[in-house]
Amino acid sequence: MSTKMKALTFVEPGKVALEDRPIPDVGPTDALMRVTTTTVCGTDIHIMKGEYPVEGGLVIGHEPVGVIEKLGREVQGYEEGQRVIAGAICPSGTSYGCLDGLHSQDGQGHAHGLKPMGGWRFGNTIDGCQAEYVLVPDAMANLAPVPDGLSDEQVLMCPDIMSTGFAAAERGGVRIGDIVVVFAQGPIGLCATAGAKLRGASMIIAVDQVPERLEMARKMGADHVVNFGKTDPVEEIMRLTDGRGVDVSIEALGLQETFEACLRVLKPGGTLSSLGVYSADLKIPLDAFSAGLGDNRIITSLCPGGKERMRRLMNVIEGGRIDLEPLVTHRYDLEDIEAAYELFANQEDGVLKIAVTP
Amino acid sequence: MSTKMKALTFVEPGKVALEDRPIPDVGPTDALMRVTTTTVCGTDIHIMKGEYPVEGGLVIGHEPVGVIEKLGREVQGYEEGQRVIAGAICPSGTSYGCLDGLHSQDGQGHAHGLKPMGGWRFGNTIDGCQAEYVLVPDAMANLAPVPDGLSDEQVLMCPDIMSTGFAAAERGGVRIGDIVVVFAQGPIGLCATAGAKLRGASMIIAVDQVPERLEMARKMGADHVVNFGKTDPVEEIMRLTDGRGVDVSIEALGLQETFEACLRVLKPGGTLSSLGVYSADLKIPLDAFSAGLGDNRIITSLCPGGKERMRRLMNVIEGGRIDLEPLVTHRYDLEDIEAAYELFANQEDGVLKIAVTP
Amino acid sequence: MSTKMKALTFVEPGKVALEDRPIPDVGPTDALMRVTTTTVCGTDIHIMKGEYPVEGGLVIGHEPVGVIEKLGREVQGYEEGQRVIAGAICPSGTSYGCLDGLHSQDGQGHAHGLKPMGGWRFGNTIDGCQAEYVLVPDAMANLAPVPDGLSDEQVLMCPDIMSTGFAAAERGGVRIGDIVVVFAQGPIGLCATAGAKLRGASMIIAVDQVPERLEMARKMGADHVVNFGKTDPVEEIMRLTDGRGVDVSIEALGLQETFEACLRVLKPGGTLSSLGVYSADLKIPLDAFSAGLGDNRIITSLCPGGKERMRRLMNVIEGGRIDLEPLVTHRYDLEDIEAAYELFANQEDGVLKIAVTP
Amino acid sequence: MSTKMKALTFVEPGKVALEDRPIPDVGPTDALMRVTTTTVCGTDIHIMKGEYPVEGGLVIGHEPVGVIEKLGREVQGYEEGQRVIAGAICPSGTSYGCLDGLHSQDGQGHAHGLKPMGGWRFGNTIDGCQAEYVLVPDAMANLAPVPDGLSDEQVLMCPDIMSTGFAAAERGGVRIGDIVVVFAQGPIGLCATAGAKLRGASMIIAVDQVPERLEMARKMGADHVVNFGKTDPVEEIMRLTDGRGVDVSIEALGLQETFEACLRVLKPGGTLSSLGVYSADLKIPLDAFSAGLGDNRIITSLCPGGKERMRRLMNVIEGGRIDLEPLVTHRYDLEDIEAAYELFANQEDGVLKIAVTP
Repeated sequence: MSTKMKALTFVEPGKVALEDRPIPDVGPTDALMRVTTTTVCGTDIHIMKGEYPVEGGLVIGHEPVGVIEKLGREVQGYEEGQRVIAGAICPSGTSYGCLDGLHSQDGQGHAHGLKPMGGWRFGNTIDGCQAEYVLVPDAMANLAPVPDGLSDEQVLMCPDIMSTGFAAAERGGVRIGDIVVVFAQGPIGLCATAGAKLRGASMIIAVDQVPERLEMARKMGADHVVNFGKTDPVEEIMRLTDGRGVDVSIEALGLQETFEACLRVLKPGGTLSSLGVYSADLKIPLDAFSAGLGDNRIITSLCPGGKERMRRLMNVIEGGRIDLEPLVTHRYDLEDIEAAYELFANQEDGVLKIAVTP
Repeated sequence: MSTKMKALTFVEPGKVALEDRPIPDVGPTDALMRVTTTTVCGTDIHIMKGEYPVEGGLVIGHEPVGVIEKLGREVQGYEEGQRVIAGAICPSGTSYGCLDGLHSQDGQGHAHGLKPMGGWRFGNTIDGCQAEYVLVPDAMANLAPVPDGLSDEQVLMCPDIMSTGFAAAERGGVRIGDIVVVFAQGPIGLCATAGAKLRGASMIIAVDQVPERLEMARKMGADHVVNFGKTDPVEEIMRLTDGRGVDVSIEALGLQETFEACLRVLKPGGTLSSLGVYSADLKIPLDAFSAGLGDNRIITSLCPGGKERMRRLMNVIEGGRIDLEPLVTHRYDLEDIEAAYELFANQEDGVLKIAVTP
Repeated sequence: MSTKMKALTFVEPGKVALEDRPIPDVGPTDALMRVTTTTVCGTDIHIMKGEYPVEGGLVIGHEPVGVIEKLGREVQGYEEGQRVIAGAICPSGTSYGCLDGLHSQDGQGHAHGLKPMGGWRFGNTIDGCQAEYVLVPDAMANLAPVPDGLSDEQVLMCPDIMSTGFAAAERGGVRIGDIVVVFAQGPIGLCATAGAKLRGASMIIAVDQVPERLEMARKMGADHVVNFGKTDPVEEIMRLTDGRGVDVSIEALGLQETFEACLRVLKPGGTLSSLGVYSADLKIPLDAFSAGLGDNRIITSLCPGGKERMRRLMNVIEGGRIDLEPLVTHRYDLEDIEAAYELFANQEDGVLKIAVTP
Repeated sequence: MSTKMKALTFVEPGKVALEDRPIPDVGPTDALMRVTTTTVCGTDIHIMKGEYPVEGGLVIGHEPVGVIEKLGREVQGYEEGQRVIAGAICPSGTSYGCLDGLHSQDGQGHAHGLKPMGGWRFGNTIDGCQAEYVLVPDAMANLAPVPDGLSDEQVLMCPDIMSTGFAAAERGGVRIGDIVVVFAQGPIGLCATAGAKLRGASMIIAVDQVPERLEMARKMGADHVVNFGKTDPVEEIMRLTDGRGVDVSIEALGLQETFEACLRVLKPGGTLSSLGVYSADLKIPLDAFSAGLGDNRIITSLCPGGKERMRRLMNVIEGGRIDLEPLVTHRYDLEDIEAAYELFANQEDGVLKIAVTP
């Protein structure tokens, strides 16, 4: 085995580059994964542009599918050569947060000037997986074997967007018979749409302005689609619900406009489930918030990680409950990942998700 | 029985007046309560000032303790002469919201230019209880008999401030061992402090700037008090929690400043439980919100009402779990209620709550 | 309009009879429904046989679909001629239980020698709906308008079996990615299977011994079926789950054998969600209960009722999430309902549910 | 440092013995704790008697307070010499159960002929802490530093009985205003009584037959005590609750008689929260179970463990919310632990808990 690998690194705002990097050493509780498929996330674009700052030289990427190349000496229960995934968020399992059930908030992540937060490490505080190899920390908590019969592309959404999207419906408390709206039908919004359906929503309204995304939203379970480029979404949603409003509104974009619309369409007692990564202060208009008297909830969710979460999501796919392969619209070799970034950053050619194979 | 009664009515912004009004007729599902004790709420002051608009001529007040004078012909399970209270919020019990467990949001209230909301009717959409008599709608859902041995003043806080204050701890999900901060120690904040203690918080921090209120906060269960006039509360709370932040922060004032401080002291995964009635748009600073990645919750609560809620709260008092009588700092005859308003509006003489007796 | 109607009454153990009865008077909070479709439930058979005792002369039946014939004078929000259903359980909305969110346990039902319980009234404590007309008590809490476009047979399962079956999944806490087993695939078990799928279970195992029911279970969402006449179900379920056990086991029959099997297949921390109406003491074997150390839950559920529940269930059907019409295997005129009882009691001809039309 | 230590071992049914044992080697993720105080649990007596079988030669005991003697080479965040406790249940943090929030059920325990279960390891599957030293597995998930100012005896109840007793109230869902009964006022029942009070119960009824225990129950928060040797507890509880029944009944003994009484006093919709370690099959009488129609819950709880749980419990003590030191009625040197077992096994001299100091 070579001691070098190809890896996409953040160079400076506006610039990422595929470089030669040493294959990492394996610590006692780590595992080295040989990456067989990975993908590019909207967050990676923010990193590339410098909107979400990381250290220069960091390897980017947080959605790995691969094979165990080498196990740390304390790691039990796995064997080298096993096909595995790891979640975008890698909980240690042993932090106070983890032991309190807050596995996504074990204090190992951070963000630019923000409070210490989260367990997001890949491509944020440690090297990520847009590379030939990636080191998985706390391997026993994070490596999830891929069931036989599932392809790389079938499970490629599990580490991040499926886990995140579903979380909106789960943490938002979607119940059988609920009306749910999902603002923005990018990959995560599409998974939120699918998640709302899986939790029993009886009417799902999907909002976007890209016709192809609205069409895909229907495939993921939307009953109604609203093109906000053509229609005022708040008015249209109130009309579709006979003025009642929605039980749960899901924000999957990260903008004031969608956040505010999510508030405006809530029924009294309703829940805004927010997935967006915001980049500016948010405003809560008094009238959209019932002056604080509406028994409302605003809930934010970071992607749930850990091997149990990954196991469950892969079972959902294995059980035929959802097929996320159609979200893979493009495929690139790792060698060409810079082109993939360009395509994805510009949202060209109807791109939803790109499979990248080292 | 006379056909007239004294009642405090809203005349115009800045002006309330005690007037003669006809004693109301009793509809089939109503009950007429002879009010023996009531009180003035901060919301009433907003109404007087015109900050929260109601119709001219409306009788104000939403915290009644009294005796059943007359029952509507369809009302069963009570008898005339029984001592009862009714909650500030009067759910019908039969709305879609009520049947979904959302008893405070059954669509019978409204607010100035806001979305239809809530079951707040007394002194908002129907005549209230700062009067000799008050008509209780949907009596079977709302009349709660007062246990023998409890005085009017002992149960005077149940209809609103105890129910509201406790709701912050309940809906905020306070758990055994939690650290909780309560911003503002007016009557509702003091009840929130007491509620946090009743749910098992192991450290409670109370914030205010009035020394008497901070002293009362200690009696209600606060372990630490922070005078925000002398200390930066966010810094002090982070110091008291060794930089960890709080599990639940409770907003009991209704201002941007306290709302924002509540966000800033939250641990990752923590909950902001909001009681405030806001009067302006709110801002969520990006850095206080972990850019949406903190697994946080913002929960607003309107006062829970209905006879079961009142029964439970009176049992808490009867069981000796809490003594709210010390919150009654002043006593007025209904004849002098205009003076009571003046005292309360100006927060003179260390006033917390005023018992008003017709 | 005639003053007489046809109605099926309980005469004595072993005997029911279609009789002429006066059309009921309408009290102030009641509504008179002209029944257009109803059905026969397993519980009705228990009543007929005297296994579940009711008073002689009671009209049987608790699953009404119909048209509002006459509204009580205090009933608002409906109009005569409107198509409606009412749930098998009719909460008052105003009891202490209802105001605590326990709408199925508002103390208005009872059972033979059992503790006072539940809000089951139709065909239990008041006349039921296997008749040309039925009086709906507490009409404002219980009448649910049928959406245009849904036929009687499409909504016929809402009042009882759909509401009950779904409750098993809801109250059992089925999550995305759960493994769920449902013991017995009669109408309620089939709805439990469908409910588990609607809540996101990734593997559903259905157990019965009637091949047609197992086949129907597949249509309702079962991934695996186990014929307990041919295979030991506990062994087979442990095999299907690789020895892991299930997250939630649903008991939909009411026998010791199935209750015990439900316990034996639970994972540590798993939940037994029980729908069965038992007719004998139950035994919890020590070894199936981890001696009390398994962090397990046993949850029983009575059919949720009330107009909000009915609204939600009809929305599920309207949204195309489930089609329960295939459960209607037979159709009878009310005139011939005695024959329907015989067919259903003997489970002849592959009967699942019978539509009865006055 | 010597290489030998004193340790109480299980020899054969009916016999335990203090023996010389090698001080354990410290694995990479372990910590060696020098025990400064421990105690004897009712479960230890079951082990001694052979009623709960463990392997011959096993060191008994699962409630350790001590000082870190040596850290495994991969253990970070602690230092040698630090005062710590560890819970009776030692979750790994990295099992599927732990990552699903089921920290007490991570599959590392077992019980005689029972399903694999739980994370109970000390004195069950690995050597326990009635010894001079104990090896703590998965140290980073389990070592909880003792706050300055808390004595060994103040935190001695945290590892097991406080954690277990409180869990009954927590998992039973005790709410503000609930009526709660606790059957049996041994150390765990007393902690359940205290836990019910900490969660806001407004009426707590304690049942036992030992006057000293009933007296202690009042100190822990009981409002009413029932001596079941003198009064029928079910009748008395129904009388105290005006026939209403209790919201939550807690079983803290492990016998059919108390389990059954817990069912009989439940209100419709009420919850039986079971802590007992049963040693025989249980019977659920049909009439006490509303034939399965009562919307009841039976919930069993194993002691929650892990450093976060211990941290919270110690904060409760540090915050002055509860004082469990009065439960320490006797003190023994480790040298005399066999006499302590005899006293405890025979429940002589009003013993509640015994502090054992190596």
